[in-house]
Amino acid sequence: MRQSHRGQVDPFIVMDVMEAARKAEAAGRHIIHMEVGQPSTPAPAAARAALAQALDQPLGYTVALGLPELRRGIAGLYKRWYGLDLDPARVIVTPGSSGAFILAFAALFDAGDRVALGEPGYPSYRQILRAMSLEPVGIQTRAESRYQPQPQDLPADVQGLILASPGNPSGTVLRRDELAALTSRAAELNISIVSDEIYHGLDYGAGFHSALEVTDEVVVINSFSKYFSMTGWRIGWMVVPETMIRTVERIAQNMFICPPHASQVAALAALDCIEEAEANLSVYAENRRMMLERLPAMGFDRIAPPEGAFYIYADVSELTDDSLSFCAQVLEEAGVAITPGLDFDPRRGARTLRFSYARSSAEIAEGLDRLERFMAGRTAARAAR
Amino acid sequence: MRQSHRGQVDPFIVMDVMEAARKAEAAGRHIIHMEVGQPSTPAPAAARAALAQALDQPLGYTVALGLPELRRGIAGLYKRWYGLDLDPARVIVTPGSSGAFILAFAALFDAGDRVALGEPGYPSYRQILRAMSLEPVGIQTRAESRYQPQPQDLPADVQGLILASPGNPSGTVLRRDELAALTSRAAELNISIVSDEIYHGLDYGAGFHSALEVTDEVVVINSFSKYFSMTGWRIGWMVVPETMIRTVERIAQNMFICPPHASQVAALAALDCIEEAEANLSVYAENRRMMLERLPAMGFDRIAPPEGAFYIYADVSELTDDSLSFCAQVLEEAGVAITPGLDFDPRRGARTLRFSYARSSAEIAEGLDRLERFMAGRTAARAAR
Repeated sequence: MRQSHRGQVDPFIVMDVMEAARKAEAAGRHIIHMEVGQPSTPAPAAARAALAQALDQPLGYTVALGLPELRRGIAGLYKRWYGLDLDPARVIVTPGSSGAFILAFAALFDAGDRVALGEPGYPSYRQILRAMSLEPVGIQTRAESRYQPQPQDLPADVQGLILASPGNPSGTVLRRDELAALTSRAAELNISIVSDEIYHGLDYGAGFHSALEVTDEVVVINSFSKYFSMTGWRIGWMVVPETMIRTVERIAQNMFICPPHASQVAALAALDCIEEAEANLSVYAENRRMMLERLPAMGFDRIAPPEGAFYIYADVSELTDDSLSFCAQVLEEAGVAITPGLDFDPRRGARTLRFSYARSSAEIAEGLDRLERFMAGRTAARAAR
Repeated sequence: MRQSHRGQVDPFIVMDVMEAARKAEAAGRHIIHMEVGQPSTPAPAAARAALAQALDQPLGYTVALGLPELRRGIAGLYKRWYGLDLDPARVIVTPGSSGAFILAFAALFDAGDRVALGEPGYPSYRQILRAMSLEPVGIQTRAESRYQPQPQDLPADVQGLILASPGNPSGTVLRRDELAALTSRAAELNISIVSDEIYHGLDYGAGFHSALEVTDEVVVINSFSKYFSMTGWRIGWMVVPETMIRTVERIAQNMFICPPHASQVAALAALDCIEEAEANLSVYAENRRMMLERLPAMGFDRIAPPEGAFYIYADVSELTDDSLSFCAQVLEEAGVAITPGLDFDPRRGARTLRFSYARSSAEIAEGLDRLERFMAGRTAARAAR
């Protein structure tokens, strides 16, 4: 069978770790999961109740842009979170943030266009771009600038730029003045910005700012997956400039018909489940506190400031230059699954790791105990040589 | 904001009709819907019950290719329907058949590749191809060959071919020997075939054959939307040659992460809801019987043999050369929404119509009464001139 060039996207290296973790569990071992990028909590109770109520109605196609009341509800979130008055007509409900990226890339860029993105970053940006015949252009960010691109880093010969704040894997946040400087420089260079804000709501004091606070000329992408704990529901949204609404509507009608109706019903109710979302957040906050207290003491001391999301990104170049083997060893010897940096940063990821703290505090505490013993044993073994 | 060339896909012309129907209903009029391409029935009861049961568990990401038990269940359908032993590893669960087309086009074709498709046909084929930088190449099919492409119609300079049986809008079915001839000719020309089998299960005596009965070198696309009455759930599948599994898995991991988990749970249970699906089918069969009895008598007598799906495609060139205005008039004067052929066949669609009979028999009977009065009035008005 014919296979395209663009379809030959890179495999996720973390899949090897996850498969090893699965095998270990199948063999009866107990594994602590610090590799996962999703909450272990279900969708908010009221969201599930709303869907249970709706199940006796036919959940046929909705309009392509999503249920009007859901679009209004999402617009309301921009008032609640950022104090912005957002026209609900600019809100487009999508099949996850993944679907939003597909729509944005189809609406903005033609085959061969180049799109810049910070390294380290979410690996699927790069792969979705490739699968859609676009060329990812990595920007090597620096620890000193909190692993976020700076205005002077923007290449002049790209058509697009993906921003991510809080970043994955870094957890670092772009300040409002940084967003203004980046979007302003991009405008000078005629670069279209896609701002991934999927971890908004998950912050620990640093606050979070939408690119919409500094410009309307941006495609903002977000989702119910993280703050609202609805990963498997595949329900997200994008906010587009008014001039793009009709274009994205036509593409969405054809490429997706509509986002999953059941998930739209649940998401609408989730918007009001602030108490439950904040309770989840307070678990992550406690997990993060434990991580920050204990990781540096055991040797993971070069970490990006984890301002948001539920990740800690560590430079482990003093410990290893083969993060994949290091992670395999941690899994084997300590029973803790962590993610090597290779998927996030093809160039420097052999010397970095990502810890996720999205699970329960008891799991995180146990994981930290195991990591501590592992690192202590490692130090003792080196000293004995 | 930048807009791409490929993102400028055609609008659906039928949307104007649907918007006019919506406005008429908002103004208090009663409209019979013969324009819709979906069942009015909900997902099978046991499918909804299975989801209700699962709602207290976290429905997080599943593996990208879908729940293993669902893939096995779908493979079982190939035994039940076609007598085929299909390796479940070749079954990939997708976010609707729409998601399957995106995956297939990314995995098979590079930017600039040309993909042939029969006209009339499902308009989104053309638009998804465009949005992914591929070039649709229309094949004008003939009423004598039941609006299906023939082996001699295949252009030598294309990389792909989309087959659709039963066809939309035609409702016509490719026989097993026709599938064999088409796939064999395509193989000679090194053309990769995507076979859209979304209306399988909805047949009225002609039977239905999967392209998998004649070759393994094909991408077959199907969905729970039609036979299992689950349109808004956005859950479908594809069957790929063994050599494509890993490629599609990697693309799916990045482009979709996974199909909606809740929909996968419901779909798994739906596979056993044969009685309910067959009850829906018997409603369509009765609707079709009424349509075939009454439409020709009122002047819609040049119709494709409606062997499957829930559509009747009529050549109305003796009645009008402006199907859009004709449909607008039928909506305005008779209160029946039908679809002009323009979306399905850009070249000949001004002289064709599609009637859907997916709604209840009472609605279809009422719609036929209204159409009969409309056509009789039209004839009387002409005679009086």
